[in-house]
Amino acid sequence: MSSQYGKKLKISVFGQSHGKGIGVTVEGLPSGERIDRDQLMAFMARRAPGQSNLTTSRREKDEPKFLSGLENDTTCGFPLCAVIENTDTRSGDYAGLTKTPRPGHADYTALLRYGDSVDMRGGGHFSGRLTAPLCIIGGIAKQILARRGIHVGAHIKAIAGVQDESFPLYPTKEIFDTVAAKSLAVIDDKAGEQMRAEIEKASAELDSVGGIVECAVIGMPAGIGSPMFDGIENRIAQAIFGISAVKGVEFGAGFKSAEMRGSENNDPFTVKDGKIVTETNNCGGILGGISNGMPIVVRAAFKPTPSIARAQQTVNTETLEPATLEIKGRHDPCIVVRAVPVVEAVVATVILDMLMEESTNGSF
Amino acid sequence: MSSQYGKKLKISVFGQSHGKGIGVTVEGLPSGERIDRDQLMAFMARRAPGQSNLTTSRREKDEPKFLSGLENDTTCGFPLCAVIENTDTRSGDYAGLTKTPRPGHADYTALLRYGDSVDMRGGGHFSGRLTAPLCIIGGIAKQILARRGIHVGAHIKAIAGVQDESFPLYPTKEIFDTVAAKSLAVIDDKAGEQMRAEIEKASAELDSVGGIVECAVIGMPAGIGSPMFDGIENRIAQAIFGISAVKGVEFGAGFKSAEMRGSENNDPFTVKDGKIVTETNNCGGILGGISNGMPIVVRAAFKPTPSIARAQQTVNTETLEPATLEIKGRHDPCIVVRAVPVVEAVVATVILDMLMEESTNGSF
Amino acid sequence: MSSQYGKKLKISVFGQSHGKGIGVTVEGLPSGERIDRDQLMAFMARRAPGQSNLTTSRREKDEPKFLSGLENDTTCGFPLCAVIENTDTRSGDYAGLTKTPRPGHADYTALLRYGDSVDMRGGGHFSGRLTAPLCIIGGIAKQILARRGIHVGAHIKAIAGVQDESFPLYPTKEIFDTVAAKSLAVIDDKAGEQMRAEIEKASAELDSVGGIVECAVIGMPAGIGSPMFDGIENRIAQAIFGISAVKGVEFGAGFKSAEMRGSENNDPFTVKDGKIVTETNNCGGILGGISNGMPIVVRAAFKPTPSIARAQQTVNTETLEPATLEIKGRHDPCIVVRAVPVVEAVVATVILDMLMEESTNGSF
Amino acid sequence: MSSQYGKKLKISVFGQSHGKGIGVTVEGLPSGERIDRDQLMAFMARRAPGQSNLTTSRREKDEPKFLSGLENDTTCGFPLCAVIENTDTRSGDYAGLTKTPRPGHADYTALLRYGDSVDMRGGGHFSGRLTAPLCIIGGIAKQILARRGIHVGAHIKAIAGVQDESFPLYPTKEIFDTVAAKSLAVIDDKAGEQMRAEIEKASAELDSVGGIVECAVIGMPAGIGSPMFDGIENRIAQAIFGISAVKGVEFGAGFKSAEMRGSENNDPFTVKDGKIVTETNNCGGILGGISNGMPIVVRAAFKPTPSIARAQQTVNTETLEPATLEIKGRHDPCIVVRAVPVVEAVVATVILDMLMEESTNGSF
Repeated sequence: MSSQYGKKLKISVFGQSHGKGIGVTVEGLPSGERIDRDQLMAFMARRAPGQSNLTTSRREKDEPKFLSGLENDTTCGFPLCAVIENTDTRSGDYAGLTKTPRPGHADYTALLRYGDSVDMRGGGHFSGRLTAPLCIIGGIAKQILARRGIHVGAHIKAIAGVQDESFPLYPTKEIFDTVAAKSLAVIDDKAGEQMRAEIEKASAELDSVGGIVECAVIGMPAGIGSPMFDGIENRIAQAIFGISAVKGVEFGAGFKSAEMRGSENNDPFTVKDGKIVTETNNCGGILGGISNGMPIVVRAAFKPTPSIARAQQTVNTETLEPATLEIKGRHDPCIVVRAVPVVEAVVATVILDMLMEESTNGSF
Repeated sequence: MSSQYGKKLKISVFGQSHGKGIGVTVEGLPSGERIDRDQLMAFMARRAPGQSNLTTSRREKDEPKFLSGLENDTTCGFPLCAVIENTDTRSGDYAGLTKTPRPGHADYTALLRYGDSVDMRGGGHFSGRLTAPLCIIGGIAKQILARRGIHVGAHIKAIAGVQDESFPLYPTKEIFDTVAAKSLAVIDDKAGEQMRAEIEKASAELDSVGGIVECAVIGMPAGIGSPMFDGIENRIAQAIFGISAVKGVEFGAGFKSAEMRGSENNDPFTVKDGKIVTETNNCGGILGGISNGMPIVVRAAFKPTPSIARAQQTVNTETLEPATLEIKGRHDPCIVVRAVPVVEAVVATVILDMLMEESTNGSF
Repeated sequence: MSSQYGKKLKISVFGQSHGKGIGVTVEGLPSGERIDRDQLMAFMARRAPGQSNLTTSRREKDEPKFLSGLENDTTCGFPLCAVIENTDTRSGDYAGLTKTPRPGHADYTALLRYGDSVDMRGGGHFSGRLTAPLCIIGGIAKQILARRGIHVGAHIKAIAGVQDESFPLYPTKEIFDTVAAKSLAVIDDKAGEQMRAEIEKASAELDSVGGIVECAVIGMPAGIGSPMFDGIENRIAQAIFGISAVKGVEFGAGFKSAEMRGSENNDPFTVKDGKIVTETNNCGGILGGISNGMPIVVRAAFKPTPSIARAQQTVNTETLEPATLEIKGRHDPCIVVRAVPVVEAVVATVILDMLMEESTNGSF
Repeated sequence: MSSQYGKKLKISVFGQSHGKGIGVTVEGLPSGERIDRDQLMAFMARRAPGQSNLTTSRREKDEPKFLSGLENDTTCGFPLCAVIENTDTRSGDYAGLTKTPRPGHADYTALLRYGDSVDMRGGGHFSGRLTAPLCIIGGIAKQILARRGIHVGAHIKAIAGVQDESFPLYPTKEIFDTVAAKSLAVIDDKAGEQMRAEIEKASAELDSVGGIVECAVIGMPAGIGSPMFDGIENRIAQAIFGISAVKGVEFGAGFKSAEMRGSENNDPFTVKDGKIVTETNNCGGILGGISNGMPIVVRAAFKPTPSIARAQQTVNTETLEPATLEIKGRHDPCIVVRAVPVVEAVVATVILDMLMEESTNGSF
């Protein structure tokens, strides 16, 4: 098993980068939810390639065709299947990659796992292109959540060490919208300019850079999640590592909290507008795996794009001889730019899943 | 659902800190595996409280009683149930905690989630005491893995900002054993001394500190794991957030890789002793969710113990009036010290689960 | 995986017949449900051995000890663990059974599946004794359902070909209670007398008989269940084959409907007391896997007890020589008698699980 | 959740009868398995409508398009997605069916479950048409199993009370092939003629008939399956109720065993060709949920097609007034005829799933 997640929602992603099509099936969506197609396409466009000089020149419309589950733009209760046909593929670029596997890529491990029949053209099922189906269901989840006053937004927290501001204690839908409209999804445009310079510099040097995406959920009901292995952290962490290139995840103060004193890290309870809240949010809205009503805050670390144009050292898997690899193909010098909506999508999907599952809070 | 994880192994943890007993049921263990009880007890002793002045003074033998699944110290194929009876409990210490919830704790969210009937004496099911059952199954998993040449070890990477060395590129069983035998599981004893000083200082100031545990798996077969949501990172991340106080997890270079160039982060392939390996291990032994045969490296960030003796600000959940809380009870000033074997236990269990599940690599 | 079922409720049964103890862990029970212990013990007593001359002479109190999840006789939201310690075991009776496996038993298949370490004393984990834990959680489920006006009852539909009446179109709680109070749970006492005679005759001839249990759920809300693989039939069928000796299951008219015309089998819709109902109930209250509000009706076929005192032909699994087996030990000549509450327990548990899961019907 | 089954194989069926398309996604297929497309199409043709005067006149080629997972007619290890586009639909035939629900159909329960947005044109996701995707994956599973000497075959055991012979103690591939080649898949052609007469008579009287399908698995390895809830019976039963119109399932002697004595029902062990076998097969090849190496034998009872041309009594769900319903559309007078390969498909899929999962038998 691999490309599935969810409990009440059951999401199954399929497709290879250079196969006939990619897509997603989803069971368990609530029935009767109207989906705004334009809004969905606008969301997916934030992930689409070719939007600026910072991303790959591969261009595809990525318009999903809904085979089932959505009639008259409304969910009908039955499993939804959405398909994007692959059109603009150049498989020749990838010939031989399983013989001389790309460092930092799944070429070698996929060969070990699936044998000679594995289809690794364009990265196969490991391709970043497979994040498009995640955005289909994520975009749908965002609309269903928004109807209930729950909003999910993200921004680039860092690229190549250049830091954006963090979200404020109470992020707003306005901040989310403003950030999402920018070509580089940052809060502080000066940081954005520096990031852009770093990406261009790396690109010019046939190299790539990594970064951090910060995501928040506002309007989150308190009391969602379960102890130990089924809390919000467990569920988001499991899902977010499903995005290619993620190597770390943290909630609230995260790794910083490891350096803090308890008196500093503990979020004092107080009352605001007749509601129990905390004065700080080092816990990222989650205590014991369960939401406390404060914004959920999660950050994901992305490694630099492994496909770089520089010559790299590898091994011929058949002869075990050293080999030098020069990767062709069209690659983003920094995938973080396009990963922002993908993180939103994954977080929104997990939150919707957990809300549907836990909506009864143990009473029915 | 909550306290379960595993696919081929199905692990279900139960118990409240001050209830009759805590324990674990496990389905799917291989049959015919001999378990060395002394070795298991020695492993559990590393987690047990009361071993030094750095930990809580609560003392319990924590000796598991095996009700099923283990006959003549050998697994018999049927579900295993192990129980530890609670003996040394002082529930009076916790009276009223759901009315004035402890900052940084699950008191408030548990009340929202489960209502007035929730049993939060001693932290209830959220108590760090529930990591003892994790060590029972983890200790068993470690023995089963060791028989196949796979070893899992961990050390304290940081406490209160004081850094230990990292594991070397190829950690050894000897390093694991040496570290495990110390009262503070560090590689560099000088760092250990500084950490001890930080803990004692925080304790004297009625405060607490957090830290980072680094864990490695050696002898790991290549080709284990699946793409997207069922890779090694997804599975370990989901499970490791089941340890109380974990707020971040990273693999290989983790958050550092977000600051690196691709040319620096990509691990070049090479051949060593006739085997394909990588010259560095920034990927932490995992590419595309699948093991590449290098050591698995994972780090978990622990927040400082939320139970501190200082007066803290909270709210009375009934009156919504501000309240001042002074926590009694016996608490570790730094849970990282005892968390080391717990991280090993969780990682070992996930690895055993994945090995059993994937052993056929798609062919049977 | 094996001894687990449930989605919202996660039930994990453990124990071997002659091990230290048997029991069950359950996650996901609603919090704040009061459990009447006397009522639970009365329910379990219906399954307990030694209640009449028709059942095994093994006598055990089967009183569950609740280690967790139940405080002050009220569920607290956390995983429940209930244990019954084994006391009255005579393992000597079973020496050698894996060498000369009992026909109709799991001795041979367990040996193949788990190897020499398997613990098959008294049938091991396959023993009918493992239905006691099913009755613990089933008895709890029945109380939780009853509080919501949903009642589950069963009776012996047939033993050795002797037929009891079927439940009427609308069974009542009174019928359930009356039947449950009898030593042989039948509607028609004359049929009961004949059944008793058949059992005694078989027993005198060192033989055993099988039979059918019919179970009904009344007060069942309409609209529960999902299409294809997650309907009420799928879920109950999967669970009911978890009771040892069940070899068939049917809903409503079941196998009879295979001989009927559509015009006869289709249940016409009508209105009764302002509610849409059907005039007949050949569908057993289930259409498309989803409840229609009529009583759920399910029947399970039990094979005759495989442990009979007569000499039987088997094979020595080591020498592959023919062997003659004479089974000692204490065995029921007809397990159907004690299986009635077990069927109720399993059905009640599935129904509670589905109600909790589907309570939102896709909207939250 | 609903339209998913499988553990190692994860199968997710999607589509509505009159939507854009139907299909299936499958994760976990072994990599490197060659699939013979002609053989797959021949298998699917056995289920296809329009093959004789006994079935609906709706005609569609039902040729699956593989979007992913199958390259060069070989599985590549990644999730497989197969789609059949709907072409020959006449939705007008079904206008208003949710207002005046068809007796014996899911119209009413689907409305309760999913609300007004439910798409019940042509039966929606409940349509028998959704068995086509089951045959795609089932046909693939059959080929993978056959390569390992495991064959799955089925025949019509009964229609309208007319009985075919049962499979012999040891069915053969030749029997399976012979039966499959007939327009009515029976062993005894005289019984087939009588069945045909019964179907035609019912059809002429604007009515329908039900029946029983018997399925066997030969070459089945012993030792597959797990106790209690994860045995072969549990898994097949859960899946087989996923076929529309199934109302009962039994294994081996099934409901007959309820009338038998233990001495008669127990299958004596003996040795044949150096292998332990049983002299009879009343257990249907399954003891304690685990295969004993004898053929698996399972029977499924199908109710008569609920869509009959006769006027039927229903209720207007809006006004609660009685209504008379005359169903238009094209319906099989007996779905059993086309259900034979569907039962094979479901059983083959479950067996493949269990073999892949249990291939290690607890050792790795």
